[in-house]
Amino acid sequence: METKHDDTAYGRARVQDTPELEAYYKKLDSLGAGALWKVANDIEPWEPRPSSIPMLWKYDDLRSLVLKSAELVTPGEAGRRVVYLVNDKRKDVSAAVGWLYTGIQVTQPGESTPAHKHKAAALRFIMEGEGGYTVVDGNRITLEVNDFVITPNSTWHEHGVAEDGKTCIWQDGLDIPLVNALEANDYAVLDGNQELTAPENFSPLAYGGVGIVPADQEWNKPYSPLFKYSWKKVYPALLEAAKVHKGSPYDGILMQYTNPATGGHVMQTMGASMQLLRAGEHTKAHKHTGSFVYQCAKGKGYSIIGGKRFDWKERDIFCVPSWVYHEHVNLSDTEDACLFSFNDLPVITSLGLYQEKAHPDGHQTIE
Amino acid sequence: METKHDDTAYGRARVQDTPELEAYYKKLDSLGAGALWKVANDIEPWEPRPSSIPMLWKYDDLRSLVLKSAELVTPGEAGRRVVYLVNDKRKDVSAAVGWLYTGIQVTQPGESTPAHKHKAAALRFIMEGEGGYTVVDGNRITLEVNDFVITPNSTWHEHGVAEDGKTCIWQDGLDIPLVNALEANDYAVLDGNQELTAPENFSPLAYGGVGIVPADQEWNKPYSPLFKYSWKKVYPALLEAAKVHKGSPYDGILMQYTNPATGGHVMQTMGASMQLLRAGEHTKAHKHTGSFVYQCAKGKGYSIIGGKRFDWKERDIFCVPSWVYHEHVNLSDTEDACLFSFNDLPVITSLGLYQEKAHPDGHQTIE
Amino acid sequence: METKHDDTAYGRARVQDTPELEAYYKKLDSLGAGALWKVANDIEPWEPRPSSIPMLWKYDDLRSLVLKSAELVTPGEAGRRVVYLVNDKRKDVSAAVGWLYTGIQVTQPGESTPAHKHKAAALRFIMEGEGGYTVVDGNRITLEVNDFVITPNSTWHEHGVAEDGKTCIWQDGLDIPLVNALEANDYAVLDGNQELTAPENFSPLAYGGVGIVPADQEWNKPYSPLFKYSWKKVYPALLEAAKVHKGSPYDGILMQYTNPATGGHVMQTMGASMQLLRAGEHTKAHKHTGSFVYQCAKGKGYSIIGGKRFDWKERDIFCVPSWVYHEHVNLSDTEDACLFSFNDLPVITSLGLYQEKAHPDGHQTIE
Amino acid sequence: METKHDDTAYGRARVQDTPELEAYYKKLDSLGAGALWKVANDIEPWEPRPSSIPMLWKYDDLRSLVLKSAELVTPGEAGRRVVYLVNDKRKDVSAAVGWLYTGIQVTQPGESTPAHKHKAAALRFIMEGEGGYTVVDGNRITLEVNDFVITPNSTWHEHGVAEDGKTCIWQDGLDIPLVNALEANDYAVLDGNQELTAPENFSPLAYGGVGIVPADQEWNKPYSPLFKYSWKKVYPALLEAAKVHKGSPYDGILMQYTNPATGGHVMQTMGASMQLLRAGEHTKAHKHTGSFVYQCAKGKGYSIIGGKRFDWKERDIFCVPSWVYHEHVNLSDTEDACLFSFNDLPVITSLGLYQEKAHPDGHQTIE
Repeated sequence: METKHDDTAYGRARVQDTPELEAYYKKLDSLGAGALWKVANDIEPWEPRPSSIPMLWKYDDLRSLVLKSAELVTPGEAGRRVVYLVNDKRKDVSAAVGWLYTGIQVTQPGESTPAHKHKAAALRFIMEGEGGYTVVDGNRITLEVNDFVITPNSTWHEHGVAEDGKTCIWQDGLDIPLVNALEANDYAVLDGNQELTAPENFSPLAYGGVGIVPADQEWNKPYSPLFKYSWKKVYPALLEAAKVHKGSPYDGILMQYTNPATGGHVMQTMGASMQLLRAGEHTKAHKHTGSFVYQCAKGKGYSIIGGKRFDWKERDIFCVPSWVYHEHVNLSDTEDACLFSFNDLPVITSLGLYQEKAHPDGHQTIE
Repeated sequence: METKHDDTAYGRARVQDTPELEAYYKKLDSLGAGALWKVANDIEPWEPRPSSIPMLWKYDDLRSLVLKSAELVTPGEAGRRVVYLVNDKRKDVSAAVGWLYTGIQVTQPGESTPAHKHKAAALRFIMEGEGGYTVVDGNRITLEVNDFVITPNSTWHEHGVAEDGKTCIWQDGLDIPLVNALEANDYAVLDGNQELTAPENFSPLAYGGVGIVPADQEWNKPYSPLFKYSWKKVYPALLEAAKVHKGSPYDGILMQYTNPATGGHVMQTMGASMQLLRAGEHTKAHKHTGSFVYQCAKGKGYSIIGGKRFDWKERDIFCVPSWVYHEHVNLSDTEDACLFSFNDLPVITSLGLYQEKAHPDGHQTIE
Repeated sequence: METKHDDTAYGRARVQDTPELEAYYKKLDSLGAGALWKVANDIEPWEPRPSSIPMLWKYDDLRSLVLKSAELVTPGEAGRRVVYLVNDKRKDVSAAVGWLYTGIQVTQPGESTPAHKHKAAALRFIMEGEGGYTVVDGNRITLEVNDFVITPNSTWHEHGVAEDGKTCIWQDGLDIPLVNALEANDYAVLDGNQELTAPENFSPLAYGGVGIVPADQEWNKPYSPLFKYSWKKVYPALLEAAKVHKGSPYDGILMQYTNPATGGHVMQTMGASMQLLRAGEHTKAHKHTGSFVYQCAKGKGYSIIGGKRFDWKERDIFCVPSWVYHEHVNLSDTEDACLFSFNDLPVITSLGLYQEKAHPDGHQTIE
Repeated sequence: METKHDDTAYGRARVQDTPELEAYYKKLDSLGAGALWKVANDIEPWEPRPSSIPMLWKYDDLRSLVLKSAELVTPGEAGRRVVYLVNDKRKDVSAAVGWLYTGIQVTQPGESTPAHKHKAAALRFIMEGEGGYTVVDGNRITLEVNDFVITPNSTWHEHGVAEDGKTCIWQDGLDIPLVNALEANDYAVLDGNQELTAPENFSPLAYGGVGIVPADQEWNKPYSPLFKYSWKKVYPALLEAAKVHKGSPYDGILMQYTNPATGGHVMQTMGASMQLLRAGEHTKAHKHTGSFVYQCAKGKGYSIIGGKRFDWKERDIFCVPSWVYHEHVNLSDTEDACLFSFNDLPVITSLGLYQEKAHPDGHQTIE
């Protein structure tokens, strides 16, 4: 049986400092060493310890600033014209939560970004506009509102908006902070644009069937061959599932975007989900390891995260740090609400670090 | 370098019989033994050796006989009221080709079969009727024409047609001959009907999304959680793929039904595909290991199999044995044609026995 | 709940023949078809149904005949000079049990076989002699008594005995019957001997460490990089395990030969084990799917298989068919006994066909 | 084609600050946001960027201080009596290199640590002493010099030295910094000692065979069932491999400790290797992602890491950070040298972040 969590009990470091020990510590320090018991209780916490705080970014606040960036800089100067969202406790690593970066990118008709690649993986969720496209690994893919699109680790990619389109805004999600922390990031710029190697929308048209994949092609890359997950296919699927599926007590109808070639996450380091909260639904509270960035794709409601209420409506973005209790509420009694989210679960689960805990009272008390 | 295929050359058994050897063979025989060189060239052929022949079963011939069975026997007497199709060379094992069984089952409004299970896996492809259903593992699933449905190894299953439906006819595919050959088949009858454990059509509604799966449920069974692949979703996906995919030279637009939880075959012992031959398409000839049973789901055309022409139209069934050259032709210049097929590829590939060879001339000469 | 096993009960085919039905059957037959209910109870047995019978081949009977083959034919004439063991019920497919072939090969000093390969997989267990060797994929490997060696599917291989060696006898195990049944076997002869691509015994020396493998080499073949499992390493490991492991009630200390790159079976279609029966051990009886060929590597005892007693001592070979009860007895009260065996478990388990049943009384009654 | 690495070129952020932009940045900052182009070039480096520096800790310096800790604190007070080694650039996370922690633990005869567990994984490499033991998941395992032993993530473990043993010193390796960074660490203390659930040394005796594993036991945990890798088995295997294996140009005879149930790394977050440098061997230089901690287990030599020479002999510990060139030299012309190392490669490779680069000149110039 486990003992209770008490730093003064047997099994924890409980050494009292003495002059002799102080001298000893100094000697260790001069040799690039230290006494474990000085730091043990701090580096071995009883429970997972998040470094981020819950935050919500209102699109009403940000939209005009995002659009303004289009007046201030060009994509060519900026590399990518993005306003990024940063957690108050993670400014040192430019992360929105945990080791996840997120930003809002604006592209005007006729603009495009330089083609580039990096060891960090990227994904996008479309917020506004018409005629947007991305080119990933030689595949040009057109984008519509609420579409989810991936640009996996080390694939060449570039984005733009057609001359006759309308200004596009999308949310970027990347694991730049993680890949930097793991000392593995790199960057390359392509001299010119990518050569298109397939007809437009090859990936979503060839791999977008239900339960069927092209039989004559071996896919052996560590990411999904389906680069775009169309809202016009995803939302009806959520509605179909909602007819028969009782859903998760913590998340309502929660569907994970998957790699159709493996059934697993879309990329090796980031996963993503779309969830539907039924009219009037108020989920139960739980906490788990793994960091999450949400965007409201439809409807309005609020989430209680770490005891604080965060109200959201379409296009608002918020985060849930690791091991912080959270629960979601759809404020409409007639309409469903949908939350897109991306996360670092592929990291957490492939390393054996996932754990989960239901709130003992079912729901949190708002502070 | 390989030597050429010659049974009189070094490396093959070339022993001449002598009276002394004859006496020796007799002595071996009395001890449950034999001389390998007597049988070696026979049991070690230069190339894969099929035991089946190509055959086609015309639905025009069979349909009335299938319907007649409904007058002759009840499902309760017959267990299942099925006319099975048997290869002229595989009557000993009741196989249509290789180790695959196929049959045509008829069920009248209000009828149902006893609930049962077996180590053999089963699948169905719907040919006619309305109001048909199957119950697999407590999931009741409604069936429409050209739907493909699985009843995996050792799942309880039963079928029927609603009182207000129309007589249903479907093709059954099973690996009974294989599982018998592997001395592993079994059978059980349920006392009564299955208890329904989920809302009607739970599986296709919950798992029928494109690139998304329910996130809150771990699926750990060795078969697809998607039990039904609806024609009304599959055919549009074929058309979408055909817009961008150049297709296989041997098969046109060939899509494999997959397990969305793994990206692999729908069951451990049988796979299935739907392929679309574009208007006027005549594919190239190749041969490979693995046995295939086809049903024409749409259109008309012919296949050349082992040098013989087999004309098919909607609902005709034919087979391609292992290592026999085959090519397909869509006879319409304006309409596409679709072929459903099921096969033993999961067996062949998981055991490392797949190989393939293009016809040296591109096409066969019809005998 | 399952009903009891009764062919006259609901859920089984129970149709009585009538003249009308007879006429119907004749018409079906003329179209390459039949009525399922005529064969259903036969092809869907209540429990797995073995086609082989238990048999034992005494080495005392066979040894002189095996040696005599060396006087009668050369390896060059015979391809391989092998006396094969055939099950009384499987003569049509030259199998010792199920779909497994086994034979006893004799090679004299200075002799060697032609280099060849085939889609059937092969393994060998060394019975007698000195200076034997095999060359697999360019790796020359020396062989000693009780060593186990693999020559996987489609690898070039050849065998011989050094000029200064002693006549070698070994048991061959192949899945020829299975690969023929699956219509996938092939054969090729190499023009001359293989070129050696590595130092002698590269594989067992490089991959023969405990829990360590060469870190700088990616092994991506579907079989073990360890080609030889030396008795001088295997037997001590059995003794070590016997110190701490209580063993299996049915098999004593049963150790499976594994692919160190995967932890799985040594090849895709055949597995192998070595088991140690402790002094005086009498295991319990069970039955399971999968076919097994045994050779006694050490000691003496008997097995009860399907209610019959089969006494064995060193070098005797016997078989246990699928779904036949078996139990093993070490007749010595002071020495351990060791049984080598090979099987088709990789086939049975990868296809989801394994099942097992303990004998209800613990032990069988000898008939 | 990639462009060259130049921050002033197209594809990088090249925005000049203006008063208008400064005001814009301030507004963004007030909303928890920022302009990506301000930080992009910094967070997206051209090549992987290590945060640690190469360091070497001499055992001659540390040994007396380690022993002294035994006079200063008890294991009961300290939790574990360990001197940890810390990288000059990673003091904030108590890491020796990257996200890896290492320490030197001393235990006197009759002492033992409290039983505890944590989400961080641990491993040990034995440096000195007799009679040491560890208890992992109810398995008591005895330890000898140069043995490598694992205590995987969330297994209960405790260590000690027998009353009649000699003071033991071992190196601990943990991924505490990583698991803290991923906000997933936890800790628990057992009330009392673990109950032993198997005979002493069950794991190494049952799973320590070459190419064989107990057949009657399913191992489904995400770490190796072999908890101890004995030097007395590992070193002979290195010598055997050295007879036939030409080795890696960068590492000599490099053998990876593996999980015999999978062929993969011993745990999900840390791997380990033992390498043998042949007499006089001087390897070539390369760099790759992933962090490494080394201990010299035998012999003497030096490594050039990031252009600096680090001389080592038995028991010295040093580190190689991610993406820093390194090469190793055995200074003896007659004796081999052995380096134990552990690393975060399972993290780097499972997340798709491994890359490697040979030094363009073969060797580094010493600064």
